[in-house]
Amino acid sequence: MKTVGNCFITCVLAAFVYAALSTTVQAADPLPSWNDGVAKKSILQFVGNVTEKGSPDFVSPADRIAVFDNDGTLWAEQPIYFQALFASDRVKALASQHPEWKDRQPFKAILENDRKALLASGEKGAMEVIMTSHAGVTTEQFQRIVKEWLATAKHPRFNRPFTDLVYQPILELLAYLREKGFKTYIVSGGGVEFMRPWTEKVYGIPPEHVVGSSIKLKFEMRDGKPVLMRLPEIDFVDDGPGKPVGIQKFIGRRPIAAFGNSDGDHQMLQWTAAGEGPRFMLIVHHTDAEREWAYDRQSPIGRLDKALDEAERRGWTLVDMKNDWKRVFPF
Amino acid sequence: MKTVGNCFITCVLAAFVYAALSTTVQAADPLPSWNDGVAKKSILQFVGNVTEKGSPDFVSPADRIAVFDNDGTLWAEQPIYFQALFASDRVKALASQHPEWKDRQPFKAILENDRKALLASGEKGAMEVIMTSHAGVTTEQFQRIVKEWLATAKHPRFNRPFTDLVYQPILELLAYLREKGFKTYIVSGGGVEFMRPWTEKVYGIPPEHVVGSSIKLKFEMRDGKPVLMRLPEIDFVDDGPGKPVGIQKFIGRRPIAAFGNSDGDHQMLQWTAAGEGPRFMLIVHHTDAEREWAYDRQSPIGRLDKALDEAERRGWTLVDMKNDWKRVFPF
Repeated sequence: MKTVGNCFITCVLAAFVYAALSTTVQAADPLPSWNDGVAKKSILQFVGNVTEKGSPDFVSPADRIAVFDNDGTLWAEQPIYFQALFASDRVKALASQHPEWKDRQPFKAILENDRKALLASGEKGAMEVIMTSHAGVTTEQFQRIVKEWLATAKHPRFNRPFTDLVYQPILELLAYLREKGFKTYIVSGGGVEFMRPWTEKVYGIPPEHVVGSSIKLKFEMRDGKPVLMRLPEIDFVDDGPGKPVGIQKFIGRRPIAAFGNSDGDHQMLQWTAAGEGPRFMLIVHHTDAEREWAYDRQSPIGRLDKALDEAERRGWTLVDMKNDWKRVFPF
Repeated sequence: MKTVGNCFITCVLAAFVYAALSTTVQAADPLPSWNDGVAKKSILQFVGNVTEKGSPDFVSPADRIAVFDNDGTLWAEQPIYFQALFASDRVKALASQHPEWKDRQPFKAILENDRKALLASGEKGAMEVIMTSHAGVTTEQFQRIVKEWLATAKHPRFNRPFTDLVYQPILELLAYLREKGFKTYIVSGGGVEFMRPWTEKVYGIPPEHVVGSSIKLKFEMRDGKPVLMRLPEIDFVDDGPGKPVGIQKFIGRRPIAAFGNSDGDHQMLQWTAAGEGPRFMLIVHHTDAEREWAYDRQSPIGRLDKALDEAERRGWTLVDMKNDWKRVFPF
């Protein structure tokens, strides 16, 4: 009985200790959807280096700025940028007010789902679609339109809302960085007002931390009430060399960490890398055709070519989606 | 002895209670440089209403956005906007590299301190001075130039660095709002890169919370290093109707409180006022020729005319500098 008693006590204690240890170990992994590997290790090491007091690489919280591309880095971008699908759906929704579109490109192509004709309309056609679908309303009306679309539209492959197609490992990374005193910003080629209505809910990134492309706005009084009208004129293109410009314009500090997935992020990564002190540059390489998509140097959407070469040359962190991520999407 | 003892104990207790109360009362006044009056009362009331839990006017911290004009609201703007003095000093500093300026307006006028000729050069002349003094360098070079100027230049009337000419009551207001969970932004007609190098130190406002006018930037590689060149081309004018546009572009949320001093802030105040829920609009009225300056409807700098009418009509808070402020400057 005494032996049993001792064993009982010891075993219970051991179980408690074991449970406590496992809890600690689990709670201590801020990136549970990442497989152990170079990418995960390099993230944890960098964050530790810049946040632990006494570390030679310590960075004050004010300077802990991390910038994330959106399309292909925070959420998916295949078979085409989701904002292009929004624009196309918007044209369809407006078609009843524009009977002339039946015979006019590029609108005819959209209404007839004629992808070939749409592509043939080129950059001029694309611009016309963007302006028609994004301008001519107030900022508040546009916000409602975006929210309504996201509430109803479904991704063609996954048959789910587009905001479900966000990357679980990156959501964990965002939360981890913020917990460590980082400010997380989006710096995207996508439209800033297309993202702001939902980034806080989906990514925990508030509107004031979203940098993107924009069309011009005009202040007007309507029935004695001020409104901001969205004009059919490009204001700023936050892509490629526009990304470091956008960072300077909107944030005014150089980030210490940058996360992207395509050549559109190349200059943002270079700009981040060129600052003094510890730096972290990461590229998500889409290598998982089964769970997501596999594409890089040849893809018309999210092409990753020059930035991939530079990443390899300079030792930037490359995420191999297939092998580095336990889960891709939260669902 | 017993009586004395009792008195002693009672008196000591009373003194402690008194001391505790006075400490409480003193600590409870977050705006010690403001005289008791309508302006101070309305600020305290608004902040209480939107921050006290259970208040019908409670606003979540995320939406506590307060925007401040800079020239004439955070620091002085007489006898002329300080940035104009910076531009003029910059032209003088560059003159040795430009012998042709001796005979070319508007540079000749600046080099000869000929104010009349400078004014005669009009908007075109002003633009030429701005571009010469603000463009042609990288963002990092410009930051250094601004810092060096502020470290040496003196205000003509007060013979002190320009950053001494900030308003003590507004510094207290900024700190009070931030303590109450507000995010404080600058929304100024002044150049965003002219303000960012010093606003954190002087106002506690970090670079990413500064919205202002800008010239275009261009990403370039120089000797294998990326730089952002400042181009001689206007990008955005953050003044008048540009202020609500700047707020939407850079912050993406409508503020619940706006602070200005001139007609250049009129639309920002209207835009803030037109939002739903509790709102606070305040105008600093320069009425103190002795300690600072007195000017409003007729002033070429910081004209306050239409916004003054609307403030009176709609009951926006008007600060009478002479009577509402115990102190103007920290010195």
